[in-house]
This record gives sequence, structure tokens and C-alpha cells, in this order.
Amino acid sequence: MSLALNQRTTKRWSVAEAVEGCVRHGLEAVGLWREEVAEQGLAESVKLVRDAGLRVSSLCRGGFLTTPGGTASGGGGAGRARQAALDDNRRAIDEAAELGAACLVMVVGGLPGVRPGEPLPDAGVSRDLAGAREQVAEALEVLAPYAGERGVKLALEPLHPMYCADRAVLSTLAQAVDLCLPYPEEQVGVVVDTFHVWWDPRLFEEIARAGRRIASYQVCDFLQPLPSDVLLGRGMMGDGVIDFPPITRAVAEAGYAGDVEVEIFNADLWAADPDEVVATMKRRYAQVVTGTP
Amino acid sequence: MSLALNQRTTKRWSVAEAVEGCVRHGLEAVGLWREEVAEQGLAESVKLVRDAGLRVSSLCRGGFLTTPGGTASGGGGAGRARQAALDDNRRAIDEAAELGAACLVMVVGGLPGVRPGEPLPDAGVSRDLAGAREQVAEALEVLAPYAGERGVKLALEPLHPMYCADRAVLSTLAQAVDLCLPYPEEQVGVVVDTFHVWWDPRLFEEIARAGRRIASYQVCDFLQPLPSDVLLGRGMMGDGVIDFPPITRAVAEAGYAGDVEVEIFNADLWAADPDEVVATMKRRYAQVVTGTP
Repeated sequence: MSLALNQRTTKRWSVAEAVEGCVRHGLEAVGLWREEVAEQGLAESVKLVRDAGLRVSSLCRGGFLTTPGGTASGGGGAGRARQAALDDNRRAIDEAAELGAACLVMVVGGLPGVRPGEPLPDAGVSRDLAGAREQVAEALEVLAPYAGERGVKLALEPLHPMYCADRAVLSTLAQAVDLCLPYPEEQVGVVVDTFHVWWDPRLFEEIARAGRRIASYQVCDFLQPLPSDVLLGRGMMGDGVIDFPPITRAVAEAGYAGDVEVEIFNADLWAADPDEVVATMKRRYAQVVTGTP
Repeated sequence: MSLALNQRTTKRWSVAEAVEGCVRHGLEAVGLWREEVAEQGLAESVKLVRDAGLRVSSLCRGGFLTTPGGTASGGGGAGRARQAALDDNRRAIDEAAELGAACLVMVVGGLPGVRPGEPLPDAGVSRDLAGAREQVAEALEVLAPYAGERGVKLALEPLHPMYCADRAVLSTLAQAVDLCLPYPEEQVGVVVDTFHVWWDPRLFEEIARAGRRIASYQVCDFLQPLPSDVLLGRGMMGDGVIDFPPITRAVAEAGYAGDVEVEIFNADLWAADPDEVVATMKRRYAQVVTGTP
């Protein structure tokens, strides 16, 4: 396994700056975000990572597949919302293919009509959690073959249950593994992100069961207490409550030998000098994540 | 099933006021908190609920069993911390017995050394989650027979995974049910609290598996977005994202026929007139929780 920078950790950096930063700090891989790739331009982003000799450890992110009334049978506005979500994911898959990304991270979406981090609207919210989960499974039936044809692996990311309503109805690794199994290994895998799964009493059994379905291993710490915007409760490894080495060992023993992305959403780190953040990240990775400083 | 007031919903009310409030609003049961019972006096609290003809649906709460270095083999300060935790729980059991409470709710505690809602101290924090969970199982071996001798049922409450570090390493209903099984049904059961478990992909299977182990059913909604103090993310039923009727039906079908406590920690409700809060609670319970207005 080798350390990679997810560019959201150094949020101020463009794709060009993140690529330069990785080279400067001796990192071999970078995880990119679609928004930043669009700003840089897809073709230029592809050229930048190739010229630098970097691997693209992931593209973040596809998903948000849960749309109001948006099951396969939904017509009218519901059908259009579903089609728009599928079309956007097809574009994300195309971008991941262009970039040669190891996977496209999928944040599957919350309850239909609930917007991430925002108050509930007065109308149009679905509380049908089982139905939303069914929508995700249905969308995968469409997207997995499309990804497979383009050599892209979809990486289903279970998110911490506190984001179940607004970001991902996929809440446990077990659920993500179950969703993978109908598809070929090269089409659909899972993300193990320590922040999201560290609490799970079944974590080690499920990492072992995931086996070669693990498409991405992301690390960051879980802060205590959570900040007022819970999305930013991610911290530098060692600053929170997670015991990383057992998880890292389990992921390795399951057969994962890819890049380990550090992905941290944190207001203090975003305000800091990105080069210092990357230097700290390298030091903490050795000290705290692998347990072999 | 019948509606009960957990007195923390009307935080300003003393035991005497909560008892009067229940009678005034036609409720047959009240869930009490140890702090408020101590303020009122245990003997007086017992007399108040008996004279009013109320059931005590629960006493909140025992637990916080995870202590630094506090396994059975720990000596010195570690041993003392563990003994203090056990002693406090024995007192809680005695109080529950005096009150004739249907159960003593157990919030088992987080990682040793992590204080609820507070920043991590510079030293003395354990990140050994499996070890903390083992401590809970060990403490139950001591406390379950003690409770059994006094006719008190311990009700293990899985808390939402966002509280895993600082309040309860018991994070899923499955985990709570597994912990119960070595003990007689009348000694150890589980709490199903909608706020904590609504997101769980295995919720309905685990409610069915819990069966007659369900010692308490508590309801409140999960707010979106969470407030800055995530402990206060609990809302009046209908104000959040939870679909209650399927959960209520599953709990009933599992064999639970006890009281349904409404337990809401919410700054706005705490600032409101408690009588209005109870009136709203009764209306929403009928409209939103049972689905039979």
C-alpha cells in the first residue's frame, strides 16, 4: 500500500497545484474531484497527471442516485430526475475512464428530496428509507455495465450513519458488500473510509468478506466532539479517536494493495498552508496509520 | 402500547411537576431520570408516582461502564475506577427497584477517558474500541445477577454511532441483542430508540430477533441538519426524517406491549411551555408514530 493525497485535503489547490504538490512531496498517486477537474479542464487534467507520472487513485464522486419518486416505474418529473441522475453518473464514469482513475467513488445519496446539510424543505421529502435503498440497487443495474464497458470500477462508499438522511442511505460496509456481489469484481467494489466505518461492530468481519472488492482505502480521523458542521468532523490521523493499525492490517490482509488516500474535510486544515498539511499527513501516516514509523 | 412521557422531554419539570403533568394530560406512565429523582428525594419520588397511580416506564440511566484500564484484571487506580462505576450502577439498580421502574436504561459509556461532548484530554484516552466493548460485557456479568435479585431489568441502549467515542460503544441493536442472550429475559433487555437505530439496514430483522428482549421503546425524530451540539439533534416526531409506523408495527409484532416513551433533548422544546410540549407530543404520537390518528 502507498500513501496518496485526496485533493480535498488541500482544498485550495487546483488539480495542477495538487499534482505539483504530490510530485514535490514524493507521492505517487492523487485522488481528484470532479469539480476541480472541470475547472482545470478534463483534457488538461489528464495531461497533467500523465506528465507527472502519477496514478489517479480515485475520482470523487458519482452517486446521488436517490431522486423523488425516482424508481424505474416513475414517469414525468420523477422519471426526468432519475434520468438526469443517471446521465450525470455516466459523465462521471466517462471522466474516470479518461483519467484512468482506479475507481469512481459513489456517494449514493440520502432520502429523496433531502438536500445535503440543509433544513428539510416544506414538501417533497420522502421518508421511505427502504425505497431509497432500492433505488440505489436499481441505478447500479444501469450504471455497472456502463462502467464495465469503459474499464471503470464503481466504488460504493458506505457513509457514517449520521449522513443517512442527506448524503448516503448506504450506511454499513455489509450493505455495500451485498450491493457489489451481483456484479463482476472489476465493475463494482467498496470504499473503506475509516471515518465512516470505525464504529462498526462488524467491521473486521466485513473487511474480510469484502476481500478483493475493496476498491479504495481512505483514512482520516473522527474528531471529538464533532464540529457544528458535522461534515467537517474529519481530522488528521492522530487527532481523533480511531485506532488505525488494526484496520490497516485487516484491509491489507483482505488483499488490498492499492493506494491509501488521505481525505480530510476540516476547516482548520483548509486554512493552513497546503504544503505543511501534506508534510504532516506523511508523518502521521507513518506514525499512526501503518503503525510502522 | 401506550404513550409515556420521559421527563427529559420537559426538562424544566421536577419529578413532582412531571407526575402532575402526566396526570393532567391523561398519561399513565413516566420515565424518570436519576438526577431529578435525587433532587426530589427517592422516597418522595416513589410516593408521588404511587399516589398518582403512574407506572414508571424507565429509570434513566445506568451505564458508563468503560473506565481507563478498567478490565477485571486492572488494579490500583484502574480497579478503583471500575469499582466506582459498578457501585454507581448498583445504586441505580436499587433506585429502579424502589421506584418499581419497568427497566433501568443503560448507556454503556464510550472509549475510556473520553468525556461526553468534550474535547479529548491530552492523555489517558484509550482507542481500544474492542477492549471497551469487552469491558461492558464483563460489567454485565456482575450487574445482571444483582439486578435480577432485585427484580430490575437492565435495558441496554444502542446509541447512534456518532456517540460511539463519548457515550456508548454499543452502536447497533444487533450488538445489544447479542449482549443480552446469556442472561435471563427478566434480567437484561434492549432499548429500541428510533433516533439511534432508524438508519440501520438490519433494523427490522434485529427488532424481530430481539423479540421479548425489547424492554423499552423510545421515540423521537432525527433532525436535519443536526444542530451544533449533536446531542440535541432529537426532535418532535414529524419534525425530522424518520418513518415511524413501520418501526412501531415491528416493535409490536416482536411482542412489545409496554409504554412508549417520548424522550427528546432539544433546546427549543426545553425553552417552550412544558404543557404545550406534552399536548403536541400526544397529537404527534397519534398522527405520526402509530399512524392511526
